[in-house]
Amino acid sequence: MLAGQMQQTPLLISDILTHAARGHSDREIVSRLVDEPVWRYDCGGLATRAARAANALTAMGVATGDRVSSLAWNTHRHLELFFAVPGMGAVLHTANPRLPEDQLVFTITHAGSRVLFYDRSFAAMVDRLRERLPTVELFVMLAVAERPLRGHVQAESYETLLADMNPDFSWPRFDENAGAFLCYTSGTTGDPKGVLYSHRSVVLHALAAGLDGALGLTAFDCIMPCQSLYHATAWGLPFAALINGCKIVLPCDRFDGTSLQTLIGGEGVTFSGGVPTIWTMYLAHLKATSGTTGSLKRLVIGGSAVPRVMAETFERTYGVTVRQIWGMTETSPLGAISTPTPRLADRGQDVCDEVIWTRQGRAPFGIQIRIIDEAGDPCPHDGETSGTLEVRGPWVLERYYRADASAVDADGWFDTGDIATIDADGFMRITDRTKDVIKSGGEWISSIDIENAAAGCPGVRIAAVVGVFHPKWEERPVLVVEAVPEASVTEQAVREHLAPLIAGWWMPDLIVFDTVPLTATGKIDKKVLRGLYGDCLRS
Amino acid sequence: MLAGQMQQTPLLISDILTHAARGHSDREIVSRLVDEPVWRYDCGGLATRAARAANALTAMGVATGDRVSSLAWNTHRHLELFFAVPGMGAVLHTANPRLPEDQLVFTITHAGSRVLFYDRSFAAMVDRLRERLPTVELFVMLAVAERPLRGHVQAESYETLLADMNPDFSWPRFDENAGAFLCYTSGTTGDPKGVLYSHRSVVLHALAAGLDGALGLTAFDCIMPCQSLYHATAWGLPFAALINGCKIVLPCDRFDGTSLQTLIGGEGVTFSGGVPTIWTMYLAHLKATSGTTGSLKRLVIGGSAVPRVMAETFERTYGVTVRQIWGMTETSPLGAISTPTPRLADRGQDVCDEVIWTRQGRAPFGIQIRIIDEAGDPCPHDGETSGTLEVRGPWVLERYYRADASAVDADGWFDTGDIATIDADGFMRITDRTKDVIKSGGEWISSIDIENAAAGCPGVRIAAVVGVFHPKWEERPVLVVEAVPEASVTEQAVREHLAPLIAGWWMPDLIVFDTVPLTATGKIDKKVLRGLYGDCLRS
Repeated sequence: MLAGQMQQTPLLISDILTHAARGHSDREIVSRLVDEPVWRYDCGGLATRAARAANALTAMGVATGDRVSSLAWNTHRHLELFFAVPGMGAVLHTANPRLPEDQLVFTITHAGSRVLFYDRSFAAMVDRLRERLPTVELFVMLAVAERPLRGHVQAESYETLLADMNPDFSWPRFDENAGAFLCYTSGTTGDPKGVLYSHRSVVLHALAAGLDGALGLTAFDCIMPCQSLYHATAWGLPFAALINGCKIVLPCDRFDGTSLQTLIGGEGVTFSGGVPTIWTMYLAHLKATSGTTGSLKRLVIGGSAVPRVMAETFERTYGVTVRQIWGMTETSPLGAISTPTPRLADRGQDVCDEVIWTRQGRAPFGIQIRIIDEAGDPCPHDGETSGTLEVRGPWVLERYYRADASAVDADGWFDTGDIATIDADGFMRITDRTKDVIKSGGEWISSIDIENAAAGCPGVRIAAVVGVFHPKWEERPVLVVEAVPEASVTEQAVREHLAPLIAGWWMPDLIVFDTVPLTATGKIDKKVLRGLYGDCLRS
Repeated sequence: MLAGQMQQTPLLISDILTHAARGHSDREIVSRLVDEPVWRYDCGGLATRAARAANALTAMGVATGDRVSSLAWNTHRHLELFFAVPGMGAVLHTANPRLPEDQLVFTITHAGSRVLFYDRSFAAMVDRLRERLPTVELFVMLAVAERPLRGHVQAESYETLLADMNPDFSWPRFDENAGAFLCYTSGTTGDPKGVLYSHRSVVLHALAAGLDGALGLTAFDCIMPCQSLYHATAWGLPFAALINGCKIVLPCDRFDGTSLQTLIGGEGVTFSGGVPTIWTMYLAHLKATSGTTGSLKRLVIGGSAVPRVMAETFERTYGVTVRQIWGMTETSPLGAISTPTPRLADRGQDVCDEVIWTRQGRAPFGIQIRIIDEAGDPCPHDGETSGTLEVRGPWVLERYYRADASAVDADGWFDTGDIATIDADGFMRITDRTKDVIKSGGEWISSIDIENAAAGCPGVRIAAVVGVFHPKWEERPVLVVEAVPEASVTEQAVREHLAPLIAGWWMPDLIVFDTVPLTATGKIDKKVLRGLYGDCLRS
């Protein structure tokens, strides 16, 4: 090999902060907080306070490679930790407050975190869990000093700590493969598993995510992440936003329609993202209040399949473009995104909408995706054949934190646990989770396809399908419908709605009306449903 | 350090090709050729032919790390070499046919190239230079097989070589720091110096260049590089275009107004770039023919300062956005680009235009710029103080090819040889080359500022200013004006035009009307001018 003669500049997260502070120092950052007034500052202010936080971490004795946990909402203080902790060479574990307490304790202890930063709303829980967090030496409450809730953890106030610190910090240069963020999967089976992002993976992800064929951010965008900062770093949005000079609006934990509408209108939000549930609530709010979407131009929705009616309503009623995104904690998360191409556009608006709204999207530059059959052979990209979805690339994990074995095969392919099709244009569609696919009479039934079809039935709020044991067919689908409050949807109406949309033999054997249980990440908890309905077709 | 646990996927140029072939296989590539009909294919076709070329290189015995030279225009065959040569692990030296022959011979020999690929238009020159190219074992003419011009170099035909080759090639995986392209500076003083781009630097540059704040490419763009492929890989445009799914139009060597207008109209070009000279010719063509710019939306112009009148005409008369770009072979080349920000936009269109049109721009993510005074201390970013411009980042060189010493200081700063100001918003403006700045009575006079002011005088085609010896003031400016053919501009008119635009003591002591000599890269050759006029103020 003949080595190139260019500079070996490592890709570091602190460079994103420095770029923002130098390139668009006065670009605003606005944050809602727990029981405090709205906070306003700018990229220059973020850089200064992140530097103070890094000095505070150093003063605490946090060293290179140490882990620090956050238990926090989408606030400017949490954002400061996104730069201070990895910037000074430590690792930020963004604990998920929606996890069951046992799992929450497991993740902080498995991470081996020495410091826990937490929002005021978690004070009582942290106090209660204190004895079960042996690695944590110091507790810091992300709040002003004037209203202490120190508890028996003897929490320091973040603001008190910062106040005394030097506003300059010389961000160290180190290997770009150093760990930066530790994010745990929600662990629906077994313990949560940690994914340790590197500085390199975060920066490359942010660069690729900003491109027009992905998130398409511009310096004139005002972005409001409605995915939690503790979910795969809010899909990397803060990093992409700061690279591209966007204004940032942080909604704390208030994702209800009224709160979002206030921020969108008041701050001029142009771009947001999150799971479908949030946008269902927002659409309901708009309808109830005859509101408009104001400055909002684009939504990136993922975590679950976007109901077609949601995309259609946003685009046709409100003029807001909806893009699906697919990914997982293991993929940083951007694995695919559904943005249009000239080839699609040439086929007319209806075809384009159909593809964009029903597919999770195409792989961005950097990511490779493929589908394989049960023998491990690649499936054709015909939009029909489904197979196990595998992914690889520089922001896909190699192994879980503290795991002895690699999580990928010899060629780097990571088995996502999803079943998908890929069409000739490269658009991928998730048809199921591997563990949720319904095997009926030797054929596969897609639980997600039935759910999507049922979700379009008037009066249906959430539709969940699980395969349950059947003495003749091995498995058969059961549909659980959570209706819109006060709607009068009937089983008959749902069956009539489904009939033209799915194959006859896919029609659920049972349709029940009930509340649909959700996981800590807001997804349908099929494990619970299988527990409830697993035996209902046995006789 | 705690290592992250993400995949160690190297950033390789072949991944750009593979991404394009998979993600937008049918996106068109159109190429003019020397004495052949226009060629049309798509990204899938490019991938197939690049694979054949890589197999041909392998069959020739080209090995990892070997150098291969091209002497070629902007054509699809040259583009294929952009992927085949680095993709298979060798290094492509893009020789500059505009160099004096001695320097051209020097670069190919210094590169140690084993194979020379050349366009038909260079057949006679290659034949003539054959004996002076001892490292070259094989000559390949980039032409169809049917019209051989083999000469005494016994050239192979590129198309004959490709025809027999397998259309599949398994692109090898290797260290991303491997050399990929070898580009020589034009060497106005001494021998040309080689800059050896790595796979990593090319891919990172392409990612950052595609962002909205830089080139802002989308999948709906049709780009036509009017900067030569042998100039810093046409500013990396082919790579950014293929990452983002753009259509590519290659004009061969025909950058005259009529040829460009035909391609813009016929192919739907939305985006182009090049040195100001080309766009001066294009504007003259539009005026002469009462033409319109059709689908053209954006121009990125660099290499020399963009005359304000050019930017203004494109935007106000034709609705084409003009962005200045600054860089050099040593910076891959993107060092700065003038794109608007909300802060600028808030100050009104006039201020925004003034800044965008008179500054070379801001550093994109990845690049850091600074200005220093003669003592090496940083100068303030006040838009007034000028200093030596230094740059660093992952696509800036560390040392020249085969150099023993580093080209940068201990902190990675590369002295660009330019004098610049940087304003509070980070917009940088080149005021001179270090070697061209005029030292008069202990103060600096910017030759570029006088040139820009003079270029706006009606009837002036090119204005060139050099500092020459003056017995009292050390140096004084001399202005050489090349007038528009048949224009009747006078010295008096130029002086009256300049008077309100520059400081009184900057007024040139002498204004002469003459042809302005240009270098191999189309810039004003001030060395020649100093030779001609150096003694004219001596007495």
